[in-house]
Formats: sequence, C-alpha cells, structure tokens
Amino acid sequence: MNIYQKRLAKLRQLMAADNIDYYIVPTEDYHSSEYVGAYFKCREYVSGFTGSAGTLVVGMNDAGLWTDGRYFIQAEAELEGSTITLFKSNEPGVPTIKQFLQNARKDADSPLTIGYDGRTVSYNFGSGLREALADSTFIIDKDLVDDIWEDRPTFPNAPIWLMTDEQAGKSRTDKLADLRSKIGAPILISTLDDIAWLYNYRGDDILYTPVALAYTLVSQDEAILYISPDAVSEEIAAQLEADGVTLKPYLDIYEDITKFAKIQIDKASINEALTELIAEPVFKVNPTLMAKAVKNPTEIANERIAHLKDGIAFTKAICWLKKLAEDGAHRELTELDVSAKILELRAEQEDFISLSFESIVATGSHGAIIHYDPTPETNVNLGDGFLLMDTGAQYLQGTTDVTRTIIMGQASELEKTCYTAVLRGNLNLGAAIFPKGTTGNNLDVLARSPLWEMGLDFNHGTGHGVGYLLNVHEGPNAIRKTGIGTPWVEGMITSNEPGVYMEDRFGIRLENLILCHKLPEEYEGGQFYDFETLTLVPFDRDAIMANMMSPVELDILNEYHARVYEELSPYMTEEECQWLYEATAPIYYE
Amino acid sequence: MNIYQKRLAKLRQLMAADNIDYYIVPTEDYHSSEYVGAYFKCREYVSGFTGSAGTLVVGMNDAGLWTDGRYFIQAEAELEGSTITLFKSNEPGVPTIKQFLQNARKDADSPLTIGYDGRTVSYNFGSGLREALADSTFIIDKDLVDDIWEDRPTFPNAPIWLMTDEQAGKSRTDKLADLRSKIGAPILISTLDDIAWLYNYRGDDILYTPVALAYTLVSQDEAILYISPDAVSEEIAAQLEADGVTLKPYLDIYEDITKFAKIQIDKASINEALTELIAEPVFKVNPTLMAKAVKNPTEIANERIAHLKDGIAFTKAICWLKKLAEDGAHRELTELDVSAKILELRAEQEDFISLSFESIVATGSHGAIIHYDPTPETNVNLGDGFLLMDTGAQYLQGTTDVTRTIIMGQASELEKTCYTAVLRGNLNLGAAIFPKGTTGNNLDVLARSPLWEMGLDFNHGTGHGVGYLLNVHEGPNAIRKTGIGTPWVEGMITSNEPGVYMEDRFGIRLENLILCHKLPEEYEGGQFYDFETLTLVPFDRDAIMANMMSPVELDILNEYHARVYEELSPYMTEEECQWLYEATAPIYYE
Repeated sequence: MNIYQKRLAKLRQLMAADNIDYYIVPTEDYHSSEYVGAYFKCREYVSGFTGSAGTLVVGMNDAGLWTDGRYFIQAEAELEGSTITLFKSNEPGVPTIKQFLQNARKDADSPLTIGYDGRTVSYNFGSGLREALADSTFIIDKDLVDDIWEDRPTFPNAPIWLMTDEQAGKSRTDKLADLRSKIGAPILISTLDDIAWLYNYRGDDILYTPVALAYTLVSQDEAILYISPDAVSEEIAAQLEADGVTLKPYLDIYEDITKFAKIQIDKASINEALTELIAEPVFKVNPTLMAKAVKNPTEIANERIAHLKDGIAFTKAICWLKKLAEDGAHRELTELDVSAKILELRAEQEDFISLSFESIVATGSHGAIIHYDPTPETNVNLGDGFLLMDTGAQYLQGTTDVTRTIIMGQASELEKTCYTAVLRGNLNLGAAIFPKGTTGNNLDVLARSPLWEMGLDFNHGTGHGVGYLLNVHEGPNAIRKTGIGTPWVEGMITSNEPGVYMEDRFGIRLENLILCHKLPEEYEGGQFYDFETLTLVPFDRDAIMANMMSPVELDILNEYHARVYEELSPYMTEEECQWLYEATAPIYYE
Repeated sequence: MNIYQKRLAKLRQLMAADNIDYYIVPTEDYHSSEYVGAYFKCREYVSGFTGSAGTLVVGMNDAGLWTDGRYFIQAEAELEGSTITLFKSNEPGVPTIKQFLQNARKDADSPLTIGYDGRTVSYNFGSGLREALADSTFIIDKDLVDDIWEDRPTFPNAPIWLMTDEQAGKSRTDKLADLRSKIGAPILISTLDDIAWLYNYRGDDILYTPVALAYTLVSQDEAILYISPDAVSEEIAAQLEADGVTLKPYLDIYEDITKFAKIQIDKASINEALTELIAEPVFKVNPTLMAKAVKNPTEIANERIAHLKDGIAFTKAICWLKKLAEDGAHRELTELDVSAKILELRAEQEDFISLSFESIVATGSHGAIIHYDPTPETNVNLGDGFLLMDTGAQYLQGTTDVTRTIIMGQASELEKTCYTAVLRGNLNLGAAIFPKGTTGNNLDVLARSPLWEMGLDFNHGTGHGVGYLLNVHEGPNAIRKTGIGTPWVEGMITSNEPGVYMEDRFGIRLENLILCHKLPEEYEGGQFYDFETLTLVPFDRDAIMANMMSPVELDILNEYHARVYEELSPYMTEEECQWLYEATAPIYYE
C-alpha cells in the first residue's frame, strides 16, 4: 500500500463509523478562494494530486478524482498507485460527480449517505447534489480528513495590517455607509477579498493574495468582523473598533448566524454549511463586488506606480533574455531559472510583496499548454522559438498581471504571422472607444478577429477583472465570447490577453491590464469610454510582421512603445536603455 | 363630434351593454404579423391613428393611445379632436397600459371588467395584464369594433399558389417529416410565414408579404391547414391533399383546438384566445423558425437571382438620380417621385411581385428619422445633401432589402466623414470570418466601432434575418448589441445595416443582405464561417473619404465594386454603364 492507499483506508474507517457511503473532498477553502492555504489542501493530502482544481470522491470500495483538461496528464501521474480512478471532466462519456453518485444510488438500490465538510462546498454544488439525490442523507458537518491528518499545517492566522485612507482612497466608515445604503436585511460576506477591501486591511493567509481568513456580518447597526484574534494586533483592533467594527473569533460566525432570521448572501460564493444555518437566506449579488471593481482615483494612481515598477522589472528580464539569445546562451537556462530571475528582479522593486499567481514560463510546446507552470518535473531548458511568460506581482501599490511572449533566435514566417495576429487583437481591443452600456462581451471580437481571419482562435476568455492589491482574478468585469457581460464603468481594471496555441509547437499570449476611462466630453452618440493601458513592457519587434498590420495598428503600437521607452528608460542601465530604444523603435507602414 | 368621437361613442354603447370598463384595441392581426391587412385595422378605424404600432384603450370616460417615439408627432396630429390622449411609450413618467389600468383599478376601488378580441393580443401581453389585475374580469371573445364598423373590408382570402419543389428546394412532405421528428405533442403554428414555408405555398393576404391567413395543426398522423376555402383552388386542394394535408376552414381551429389535451405552441407569436382554449399548452420555440431561416441551396440560388434583378433596378435609379443632380435637376423631384421611380424600375424586372415593405425615401433631415416613410403630408422636394433610400422587393426568386444613401451635389467634410464611418462598419461586418458558435451579437461591434471612434452610434439593430419570398424581417438570426443571439448557421440571410443619424441634419444608412457560408476546409481553430454579400448596388464614391479607410477596407470596397460592375453592367444602357464604370472604379490608399 502506498501512502495514499493508507490514507484512504483510514478515511474509510471513519466513514464506516458514521455510516457514510461516499465522502467528498473538494479543493476549496471555506471562502471559495481561488488559491488556498496549506491548511486547506485536504484533497491533495488524501489523493496526492496537487493540481489547483479537482474533487475527490471516496466510496467504501472505490474512489474517483475529477479534474479538468489542464490536469489530465499530471493527475494520471500523481494518482498512479493510489487506487483512485481519474475522471476526466467534460470528456465524452465521463459522468459528473452528480451522475456518478446517481449511478451509485441506482446500483446500491437504497438511499446513500453522503458526507463532506459543508464549509468547503459551494451552496450551488451542494444544493445540486441534494436535488439529484433527494432520498439520500447528507452529513455536512464532518471534516474527516482533519481526523486522519496528523501533521496538518496550522490554521492560517497571519497578522493583518491596515491601509491608510491615503492608500485605500476611501475610509472603511465610508465604505460601510455605502454598503448599508444598498442592503435591506443584514448581509453576510464570506469572500476574503471583499472583506479586506471593505475594512481596508490586508493579510497573508493565502498564497499570492494578501487577504486574511475572515467573515463579516454587516447590518444597519453593527459591523462584525470574524477573524482570528491572533491576526489582529491590539493597535489594529483599537483602530477598527474606533471605526465601529466589532471583532469576534473567526468561527463564531457559525453560531452567530443562527440568531438572525433573514440574511443577505451571495449564492456564487457562500458555502453550503453557512447557508444551511440561515433561517431565511436572501440571495443577492454582493454589492461590494461592483464597488471593489470600480477603482477610486487613489487606487488608480497607485496602480500606475505598481505597473511602472512591474514594467521595469519585467522589461529588465526580457532584455537579459534577448541578449542571452543573441549567441544562444539562453539554451543553458531552464524555465525555472527564468522564473527565478523575474522574481528576483521584481523583488528588487520597492514595496514588492509577492507574486500574484504562480509564474507561467513556458518554452516551445509548453507554451501551447494554456495553464502550464513549470515544476521540477516538467522543467526544461529554453529552446529556440517562443518563450511565453505570464506572471504578476503584488506591490503595496497594487496588483499586476502581464504576459509577454518573446522569440529566442530567429522567428519563422508562421511564428511571425501568429504573433502579429495576437498583437493586432491586443492593440485593437486596447484602443477601443465605446458608448455607455457596452460590455466586455461586445468588445471580445476586437481581440479575436485578427486570429479568426487566419482560421485561428483561442479557447479561453479574453480578459478578467483584476483587484487592487487583492485577487488577480476578480469580477464582475470580464471580456468574454459567451454571455452578456457587465457594462463598463470608469475605474474597472481588466486584462486584455488574446493568444494562440499550436499544439506541440508553441503558444503565444500577449497580456496588458487596461483601465476603463470615461471620455471627458459627451459626443453626438452620448457618453463614450476608452482604455488606458497600465502595463508597460515592450512587445517583441523581432516577431512582428509589419505588412500584416494596418497603418492605424502601427500607430497604436508605435505610440505605446514610445510611452514604454519614455516611462521605463530612466530606470534602465545604459546597456538596457540602448536595447530598449531599439526594441521600442517605431515601425513604418510598408 | 368628429368621426372618431362618434365611433368611440358607439363603442362605449356596446361596452356598456357588456359591462366592460376598458376595451383594448391593438394593432395586430390574429397571427402577430408585422404588417396587417385592411380588415384588421380596427385601431386605425376607431382612433384615426395610422401608424404601424400602437394600442388604443377605451374607457367609458377616457381613451388613450400608446405608441413609440417613431410616431409621436404623427399620432399627435392624427388624434387631434378625437378626445383620445396620446401616451408616449417609454418616455419618463408615462404609465404603461398595465400601469394605467392598475391606476384605474385603484381609482375605481373595485375590480374592473376588461375586454378585447383575444385573437389580436399576444399570450405574453394578455397573461401580463391578467397577472397585474388579478381580481379583474377579462372578456376576450368580443370583437366589438366589428359591430360598429359598417363598411369593414372583407376578410382577406386571396388565392394561394403552390411553389414547385424546384422553387422551394424541399418538398412539403419532407418539411413535414422534419417537423414531425422535432415535436412530441401535436404542434399548432400560427405565424403565417412559417405556415407558407412549411407547405410551400404563397398568398396575397398581407401587404408586402406573400402569405395567406391560415393556421396549421401538425401531429404525427395529421397535418391540418386551416385556411379560407375561397383561397384554395380545387387543383391546389387536390395537390395538398395528395401530400397528406387536410384542409379545413380558417376559423375551425378555434373549435378543433379544444379537442386536444397537450398542444405545443410558441409563446412569442401565439394569440391569447387560442392559448386559452388549449387544455395543456406546451410552450416551445417553433422548430420551423430555424428550419426556415436556414436557406437551402435552391433558395440561395434563387436569392442571388432576385438580388441581381433588384441590383439592376436600384442601380438604375441611383444612376438616374446622380445624373439629375449634376445640374441640380433633382431639386424638382419629391421623395414620393423617387419612391415611384424605384418601384417602376423594379416592376420592369421579370417576376417582380411587390415591394417587401413601405419604401423609405428621405431627403436631408428626414433621413435622421429612422422610420420615416414619405406620405403626401410629409413629402418634400429633394434638397442638396444626403438622400437615404431604404427599399426592398418581393420577386418570385426571393426577398430583397437594401439601403443606399447618396449625396446630391457636393458632400461636406462632415458628410463624408460620417458616410465613410458607416461604410467602414458595413464593409468590416460583411468581411468577417468567425468560428462556429459565434452569434450576431459577437459581431455587432464590427459595424459600430468605426462610428464609436468618432463618438457616434446608431440606435437600432445592425441586422435582421430576411425570408425567402416571405417576411422581410424574420428570426432567429440577428445582429444586435444586447442579448446573446443565435449562433450562425450556413444559409442564414441577414441584413448588415449600420447607420448614423444627425438630428435635423441628415441620416445615413448602408444596408446589404449577407448570406452565411461555412468555409470549405477546417482550420487549426476549427470550423469557420464567412458572409457572401447578396446585394449588388454601388456605394457612393462621391461621399467617401478615402484617407479614413485602411488598405484592407479599400480592398474590400474595390473588390465589391468590381463585382457590382461585372454583374450589373450587362443589363445597363451604354450611358448607365459608363456611369457605373466610374462609380465602381477602385480607390487607392493615399
């Protein structure tokens, strides 16, 4: 028996004691966080699968792990010898967890008992299962993994720090007043970035995202922040209390919530255990979602600083790589070496806190794996051809997310053609001007049409919202092909990241963050908006096929490159500056 | 008392006899048709208001007419002296009919009795009213206007004619078999174009649309066509019956429908009276909607012929106008003269049947009124500046819809700038290449972005589906800014009609019909689609500002113009040919 077989056996003993037929171990923490701390990695502990998405279902005689296309190869390797079956989500003929359990119910010919820790399951998932398995018993208050996990990491409780109003742009009392004006019943907020945003604090409980494990309950009279007392210094506690915030221990929410009748919650993020404790849940979109997405002038000014720093660091890395590539020396570096170098250059910047997500540094065919990030197992030396780098950071002044793909050596015709199409999409979307009411979905085609002209497309969203020293992925703003989307509001920061992926050959993605602005005057057609590109990193002139571009597109590129040179050059060494001058030189219409 | 006051008085006598507090007179026939025959113009008969949209509500002491922005001025004039109040729909503070009746209910302080002819009211409208006025009594089987309308036109029953399978491309037996494969319960279809399409007949009961008043009920065993016996010759009856179609008198459906339990109907088009008679209505989108929208190869080949004919006629008209404008002679013509000339030139084409909608011929500021069509009251002489012509026709080979805006005399800078932006939108949308799953909503921005760049926009859809010798407006394909839309399917014909409207100055709209094609090979990005422009009429080179256009846009324009010249020139006189040669000459990038 390997270690995972042993852990499964222990888990089954506990299941048997509670008469549980199937125990579900999801990836989530109690807050639907995108990244989770070590404490919450129960699924990884039991199964050995380390991917960022996946759900383990353990029966008394069988066990299955569901994950998506990004992780099929990795999961197959990591589950080897565990006796756990890999279920490839969304592949033809593969049952969903719901269908799997329905089949199990049919085979058993009697109602099942299904268990999980309801705090780690979304309300939507849980209620879907209950509906599909109406005669089954659900036990959702058991964290069985906790009982078998001997050396479980401690529950995160890193100290929080308060932003000054000058850093936040708006005081927590003003934010609370705004929130109160938008709610009827008391509201329970469980998303960590919304809570950190509301109270103008930041923490360190989650990888890549400076938030703290917390809940908050806000009514017209009270604002209770549920957070580990260890995370809040006396001084900070005093300051919060002076602003009308009551502090209570983190888990007290599970008791307090039962004292209310109506509570407003957001279906999209609330966990099932909490929902079940609320007498009359009022499902509404959390109003802080939009308030947080619309950055205020202070946040915007700071984000510009963060992007300048990030642009300096990343451009230095690109310069270093391009210079190495001149005589093939890049071939001695691995993907992880590049990753480390980028981190090192960022860390040199003042107020650098951490990366904002796991760096993607992908050479050649690795670039075609959309969510590839190098690990010691996959790490390879850089080859000639494209190197795709999708990385981001947290600075005191904000969150960045940038992708550049650069050519190592000479670009082929095909490489240049594909690069130029992606670049055109990025430039056209970034230069869009559009009236009030327009959504990201309306604009999506601008990023895709240069690829479509060539029979190419990319199988991911074009853009996601980005937080202010918070989550690198946040809503509601997004740029997508499907759905309707949210109308643009001045102050939203969104990524602009078209790409193209040629399986087993290369991948290209070019990503800037763009900030939505209202145009200063009203026009005949009403109020219009445009974007300011925050990211300041040159595109790779060596991969551009100028005769594919229109004069207008070349103008946009040249103006951007002139701006990049002007803003970054004061921070470059003489050698870097010379390189940057050439890398950002204008390209003329042929 | 003017004539409309008298009619209202008579109507109120009948209302009193039935204890009806409010009687509603809508614009619709029994089939939600866009255009209605003279028989159905009850609202016009009682109120005097002739617009194509509007609803009259008559109380015992008050009466109101609701219509939209297109008709405010006209309605105000036409309602003068009638005692009917104009309610401007969607204007701030103006109640909807529902709200108006709810207020009346409140004022009366007792339940109301509301009457209307349920055959002329959509299920959605009727059920909305019933919900809002839950305690009121609804009498929906009274066509009271019929009782006061002495010289009411006869009920339409123009003879139908059958298309051969070579004209229709698919036999009615095959179409019935397809329909049967898509339904569970028997289906009732009430939309006249769907019924004509299904049985491969055409009629003449409705202005501009060659359909006949009919219903059909299709089950796995039966296909019953409810239609006036006078409309069907013995020969045609025999042929339909040989194909398994049972004929019954038009109004028998209201009796027959009560014999079934479940009947599948389409909420969007079914009238309330019929819905109320169905024991178990199953609401589903009518499957013939999509089948009809996707034109078969025969229909497509014929549509190309129809568009060639239409292009010849309309281009001759434009040539005539542009030549008159050379020495200002256009100023002696009125809008209605131009309308008549276009009709005359179309009528010269073989197999011309009728216009496909009321021609819009609008000089100068009239062009800025989006739905302007000249009447003897509004008709004016052509001025210098833009002349907007939005017209279409029915030929045996199909339906056309085309808009051209031409400059009479010299175009100003502003006129050229606006014209070129609209043209760029039209060209970019027409040249789109896009992958499977893309909808009209995804592509909408292509037509708008050149206008957006200038702070302009247009307040109407970019495109609507067009029938094959049927409705000039049909679904489900459309190109719109809001909503999600229907994915493109090869064979859909859609309009491509961006515009710009400068109030009190001018309007520009440029409209082609575009046919969706699958690209012959699969690409790296999967299956792709593009459009073939069916419309063959030159744009106005005199209004184009070439330096606003990209080289690619100029290529698209020049290729289109070369095609227009090649296809039309064989049918032009020598003089017209010379003009067309110059009108379609290539424009080079400056």
